[in-house]
Amino acid sequence: MKDNVKVGLLGLGTVGTGVVKMIQQHQEQLVHQVGCPVSIKKVLVKNPDKGRDVELDSHLLTTDPYDVINDPDIDVIVEVMGGINETRQYIIDALNAKKQVVTANKDLIALHGSELQKIAVENGCDLFYEASVAGGVPIIRGLTEGLASDKIQKMMGIVNGTTNYILTKMSKEGLAYDDVLKEAQELGFAEADPTSDVEGLDAARKMAILARLAFSMDIELDDVAVSGISSVTQEDLKYGATLGYTMKLIGYAEQENNRAEVSVQPTFLESSHPLSSVNDEYNAVYVYGEAVGETMFYGPGAGSLPTATSIVSDVLAVVKNMRLGVNGRNVLAPQYNRQLKEPNERFAKYFIRLHVRDEIGAFAELTKLFSNYSISFEKILQLPLEEEGLAEIVIVTHKASMDNYQSVLSEINDLDVVRAVRSFYRVEGEGTK
Amino acid sequence: MKDNVKVGLLGLGTVGTGVVKMIQQHQEQLVHQVGCPVSIKKVLVKNPDKGRDVELDSHLLTTDPYDVINDPDIDVIVEVMGGINETRQYIIDALNAKKQVVTANKDLIALHGSELQKIAVENGCDLFYEASVAGGVPIIRGLTEGLASDKIQKMMGIVNGTTNYILTKMSKEGLAYDDVLKEAQELGFAEADPTSDVEGLDAARKMAILARLAFSMDIELDDVAVSGISSVTQEDLKYGATLGYTMKLIGYAEQENNRAEVSVQPTFLESSHPLSSVNDEYNAVYVYGEAVGETMFYGPGAGSLPTATSIVSDVLAVVKNMRLGVNGRNVLAPQYNRQLKEPNERFAKYFIRLHVRDEIGAFAELTKLFSNYSISFEKILQLPLEEEGLAEIVIVTHKASMDNYQSVLSEINDLDVVRAVRSFYRVEGEGTK
Repeated sequence: MKDNVKVGLLGLGTVGTGVVKMIQQHQEQLVHQVGCPVSIKKVLVKNPDKGRDVELDSHLLTTDPYDVINDPDIDVIVEVMGGINETRQYIIDALNAKKQVVTANKDLIALHGSELQKIAVENGCDLFYEASVAGGVPIIRGLTEGLASDKIQKMMGIVNGTTNYILTKMSKEGLAYDDVLKEAQELGFAEADPTSDVEGLDAARKMAILARLAFSMDIELDDVAVSGISSVTQEDLKYGATLGYTMKLIGYAEQENNRAEVSVQPTFLESSHPLSSVNDEYNAVYVYGEAVGETMFYGPGAGSLPTATSIVSDVLAVVKNMRLGVNGRNVLAPQYNRQLKEPNERFAKYFIRLHVRDEIGAFAELTKLFSNYSISFEKILQLPLEEEGLAEIVIVTHKASMDNYQSVLSEINDLDVVRAVRSFYRVEGEGTK
Repeated sequence: MKDNVKVGLLGLGTVGTGVVKMIQQHQEQLVHQVGCPVSIKKVLVKNPDKGRDVELDSHLLTTDPYDVINDPDIDVIVEVMGGINETRQYIIDALNAKKQVVTANKDLIALHGSELQKIAVENGCDLFYEASVAGGVPIIRGLTEGLASDKIQKMMGIVNGTTNYILTKMSKEGLAYDDVLKEAQELGFAEADPTSDVEGLDAARKMAILARLAFSMDIELDDVAVSGISSVTQEDLKYGATLGYTMKLIGYAEQENNRAEVSVQPTFLESSHPLSSVNDEYNAVYVYGEAVGETMFYGPGAGSLPTATSIVSDVLAVVKNMRLGVNGRNVLAPQYNRQLKEPNERFAKYFIRLHVRDEIGAFAELTKLFSNYSISFEKILQLPLEEEGLAEIVIVTHKASMDNYQSVLSEINDLDVVRAVRSFYRVEGEGTK
């Protein structure tokens, strides 16, 4: 049995630094948990001379990844450098060198997770990635172990902290999207180029990873339909609030008879839904299991220490497996073939805000179009607009299929009475399925 | 390697029936997960002739526990019969017969968990009990695996569904405690004898189990200071709401330098705290870790299917360990000696409601007593009472030590101006430590 585990790091940014600190500072606790010391042997960095907020002997630093990957003393490789193509190759080489791998790289796992998992199993190695989704929230363990015996039917996740921060500020302080984004950038909650966050791409990667595990199905990133929050307006939020809704960027995944749908979109939640009170930069994943009913995992979605916590927990799991001699033996191939629902099998409620001519019979025309496609209304709100002769109409529909909505949206602008469709958002109810 | 795992059940009530159904109905999924069939071999029941909502051959039923415990074909014993002394002996005998054990019995684990865990390890067996705390919420895995590398500093749990249901109804519908209790009994949310729930004993058992795991310390049930909700009044809730608080029965556990405190008491939470929106019969455990910060686990606290889900997940974990040959090898003895904080090391804010004589200088007298014991006020609310010459005063203090509160409470009735102390509740802030 190994009596001294050596860890190699690829990358030493804020997360990598956090991992090094936790391993150094919690050594006594780690020894208690896994029965042997765990230490850092080698770290890949870009610039060895850069000042760092961590004590590490300079001879532990290298600029050559293969000093880490091929070091025969190293048992576990922690990848916190980010990136895709180059990093993928490093991880493949590490697995082929029989190293256990822990990564926080959601982009990589979303795109190449299935391939890498396969290579890990072939080499009898673990590949763990708890930190890749919602940093401090142990949702992956929750899905693969805690709810292992249940059939997950539905998941809804607030899995991007930046957009949740922006929507919370917009809702609570009545500020415009552009102003909040600017403030978030100044505070470091949003990147200089915020596209990946605000357009939902980051959330889509996480939902692909979660749906793959929850449904035991080889969901690909391209299967996730995505729209972001950059066109959400104060008017939308106010009308939503009037009707009892809170806006969140929701990753939605559902399966029925092993046919799945996965999407990310700004969504109006009924304010009684547990996710509607998840605010600021926090993340949460709501899971609906056939047997367990509703559960929710809540916590910080990012941040170097929460993410480092998940990584070190994964390292401990790997080390326990090493000491038991069972690495790479507890990984599941997907149970079901990947089958996606067609638009006519995907049902949701929608919030639709329109400007219409304020004239007799206008509403009747609208109703007729929707009822042609079997869509009925749950809530209606009509208010006069400042512009003479126009009215604002907000409709919340009952559940209907996506293809019917698409038909309505393609025809609605042809109606004489409709001036413009201002917005169109998914609506989710109280939580219970 | 075992190629067919046999399970024996002690007990076949609603939870046991749920376990049988899940194992029967999800067989294909279980085989996929653990690589071999899992089937029910023998079930201890009180009355074999009773009609049951599950299909089981009558020859699988027995009234002799040792038909299950000593059956050489049985690998895993699931204990869902409840009770303490007799059940403890069955589990000891099962472990000594080298059976893996899964139990949902919080009373037993709270009282005898450490002893049973030790016997399990001596026999190379697993003893898993995820279902003993908060049925459908995988909090025990969260603590032992997901947050394994972190140092847990504080936990707050809503871990009793009955009391949370009662307090939610009292708060939202303005009903009296007795009326809500009666309704809860009629709906099956409260037992005919509700003492264990409403006086906080059930929550105390769960907090003892959680604190033991979170702090790696051998906390005993007697270490948990308990008070229940049966004397909570509508007046308290209304004054609390006025000051921005929601009342919950909170299990509180905190450690500092490996000295712990664990308690259960009705607590006013600031309405922005994530736990304050956990309503009805739902449970949630809020965990504050040094590195991870705030996380929360939310879900159904009871119910036969959520509890059965946790049990079957534990059975799967046991079976995976069996197939890897590592049962009983992954259990941790407590890392720290049990040390409890003294009253002068335990700090909290409190809400105190008093009736005082409405006369000049009354408030000055009160202030003097509190400041004698270094307790200062954060919020004060004074209202006239209907009874001539009396006023109602509500004080929320800043943090102070328990021994100082005890001194104040022992002297306050001696003050001429004080007619009566009406209530006294712990107050918790926004969540961040």
